[in-house]
Amino acid sequence: MSSDKQLVIGLFGFGVVGEGLYKILKQTPSLNGRIKKVCIKNPGKKRNAPDDLFTTDKNDLLEDPEINVIVEVINESEPAFEIVTAALRKGKEVVSASKKMIAEHLPELLQIQKETGLSFLYEASSCASIPIIRNLEEYYDNDLLHSLRGIVNGSTNYILTKMFEEKLDFKAALLQAQQLGFAEADPKLDVEGWDALNKWVILLLHAYGVIAKPSSVLFTGIQNIQGSDAEVGREKHFEIRLVGQAKKLQSGKVAAFVLPQFVKAEDHLSFVKYEYNGAVLESSFSDKQFFYGKGAGSFATASAVLSDLSALRHHYHYGYKKLYHHQPNELTNDFFLKVYVSFDNWDSIPKDRFEWIEEWHAENDRKYLVGVIHADALHTSNWWRENGVSLILKPDPIIEDVEIRKLKKKSLELAGLDLSKS
Amino acid sequence: MSSDKQLVIGLFGFGVVGEGLYKILKQTPSLNGRIKKVCIKNPGKKRNAPDDLFTTDKNDLLEDPEINVIVEVINESEPAFEIVTAALRKGKEVVSASKKMIAEHLPELLQIQKETGLSFLYEASSCASIPIIRNLEEYYDNDLLHSLRGIVNGSTNYILTKMFEEKLDFKAALLQAQQLGFAEADPKLDVEGWDALNKWVILLLHAYGVIAKPSSVLFTGIQNIQGSDAEVGREKHFEIRLVGQAKKLQSGKVAAFVLPQFVKAEDHLSFVKYEYNGAVLESSFSDKQFFYGKGAGSFATASAVLSDLSALRHHYHYGYKKLYHHQPNELTNDFFLKVYVSFDNWDSIPKDRFEWIEEWHAENDRKYLVGVIHADALHTSNWWRENGVSLILKPDPIIEDVEIRKLKKKSLELAGLDLSKS
Repeated sequence: MSSDKQLVIGLFGFGVVGEGLYKILKQTPSLNGRIKKVCIKNPGKKRNAPDDLFTTDKNDLLEDPEINVIVEVINESEPAFEIVTAALRKGKEVVSASKKMIAEHLPELLQIQKETGLSFLYEASSCASIPIIRNLEEYYDNDLLHSLRGIVNGSTNYILTKMFEEKLDFKAALLQAQQLGFAEADPKLDVEGWDALNKWVILLLHAYGVIAKPSSVLFTGIQNIQGSDAEVGREKHFEIRLVGQAKKLQSGKVAAFVLPQFVKAEDHLSFVKYEYNGAVLESSFSDKQFFYGKGAGSFATASAVLSDLSALRHHYHYGYKKLYHHQPNELTNDFFLKVYVSFDNWDSIPKDRFEWIEEWHAENDRKYLVGVIHADALHTSNWWRENGVSLILKPDPIIEDVEIRKLKKKSLELAGLDLSKS
Repeated sequence: MSSDKQLVIGLFGFGVVGEGLYKILKQTPSLNGRIKKVCIKNPGKKRNAPDDLFTTDKNDLLEDPEINVIVEVINESEPAFEIVTAALRKGKEVVSASKKMIAEHLPELLQIQKETGLSFLYEASSCASIPIIRNLEEYYDNDLLHSLRGIVNGSTNYILTKMFEEKLDFKAALLQAQQLGFAEADPKLDVEGWDALNKWVILLLHAYGVIAKPSSVLFTGIQNIQGSDAEVGREKHFEIRLVGQAKKLQSGKVAAFVLPQFVKAEDHLSFVKYEYNGAVLESSFSDKQFFYGKGAGSFATASAVLSDLSALRHHYHYGYKKLYHHQPNELTNDFFLKVYVSFDNWDSIPKDRFEWIEEWHAENDRKYLVGVIHADALHTSNWWRENGVSLILKPDPIIEDVEIRKLKKKSLELAGLDLSKS
């Protein structure tokens, strides 16, 4: 059986996650790990731990030969990257929760792991307590993964649930999320989809071996969703979620995006409410698998860090099997999406960019349409997230190139319309 | 990065799972695995594979030095055990789906893994496609696992769902399950709870490091559940599920059982319908985690076998960390259960075995009561599964020793009763 490694930990950051980890480690002696030193930015702050644990000099951790593991849970992305790379170069293994840093530096982080042969683990970076990275990496290695769909941001999910269940408007729901600590004081990262995007980029690597630049992925957040959108959803028994999606197309390439979506009541993702996260994997042979758990919060995130530490004890490292052992996959925006778009003013909508429009409703102040548009036409334009336009995917939104002609013909026949592009 | 092993597979059994695996392997060349020989019992049967693949002589597989992995998916428990142990002794790694065999032979199987140092993997044995064993083994190693609850038998869950959703009676629902291939021709193993019990014994090992004899675990199936029980549940918005449960008590020991239970609409397990399986883990820091997927069927089971094969390629073996690296846990029946019991005849019920009875309903032909009883009083008697008595746990059924006096006093005060045992 495998030999156990004694972990002597240098911790960067003592915010909610760092302090959570400190408390948890004290309660889990079986892990055989102790925090030797904590590096913080602001020495003046009162903290619930002995003073001599803390330092403001990163070299007190990085240059200490006894420290064999660095845990990095700070907020700023660039300092985090410097810490991680410096630690690996010093021969220390690293656990991190910094999704933004990881998503923005995938190529460098893969390279340095290759060079040093050391472990760099970051389960806490996506879906907090849900072991989704490890399962994608280890368990869905061989299977033909058809698709991955996930709710990966707890704050936005909390807000959407509140808008639905209690009919709160966006601002009131956001305020509640902030009061409960599920959303940052500056909620832009969550609300505008950046946080979900970063997590999705990380999951794409472990699901499909894709190294994607965040800027290459089609995304937005929930900032433009209106009460009236929720109302339209409710009529059809749909809820709205911010959903990350990746699907292997018939071309062999991978479609991926993070966009608001109407989900049916029977969709597994409609089970995911408030600050929870969930992911649905669909594969050739195992049907749908659903993983669900707490996606945010001090202990949920710290527990994922703890699982990484435990894995280090047993010499675990990511194999990046889909990248190194299989034919890695390629992202594409060459597919179509079925979208609902609501807006105040017809002039905001470039109608000729749609393949076809199959519904329009102009009876109220807030107007909306349902139509089909090429993903690249969204990716290369901004009208759909400006001027109060709200875009929400319909259920099963992806239409592949090979299907589009047939569907378009049928749709136009049904509508008795000719939108000139057929 | 880890080196890949070429898998040359000897397969025992070509029933639904074996044939499913054969088909899947042909579609996943990336696994780098091929079935060299298949050992079957009945050579006369027409099969969808070349004739020269088959043999009836097990030594054609066990004595072939080129074959480095044995996959065992036969139905009979004792021959399966012989194949597995013989294969390991011959230096071959083994993947198995035989839950009954594994549950009944845990000590020997642990011993032979220790002696040979070879991998024996069996993810398919519990919850088919859900990677529950691997997650318990790897991911919930360090965390203080409060409890594990699961629906681990697809056939009984299918029947219960049909009884609820379509108000079918037990026999009609069972017949449908059989017609769809979710239940065996002899449904006793499923319906009377044996299959769920075996799976639960396996999960107890990976969740808590407990080596339990199946006979030491309190269990029954769904054979006595009546339409009237479903009716009582419906009034309270409860559904009925056959639930495996394990909980770490304040005494440090583990309570474990497999019994029918009323589950609330908001319980994650109520999401698990028809032939699906699900498991809810509760731990100190990560809150509730929910895993859900297909629990039965040719491809769902074969896909778990495939994941084990893929893991073998990367030299994976179970570490049994909770057994070998932690203080292993001990099972106990020293706790109390809150139960609903329905029956035709008062004489079937040993009323004095209950701590207290807090509800009784005698207005209809089918009578029922709700009360609290010691788990050992159930484990050492049979009245509750005989003479048409139906026992169903209430939601949150476990009452610990330390709580019982207080609750009993309160309950008797509320009822204005003295049942003489206070």
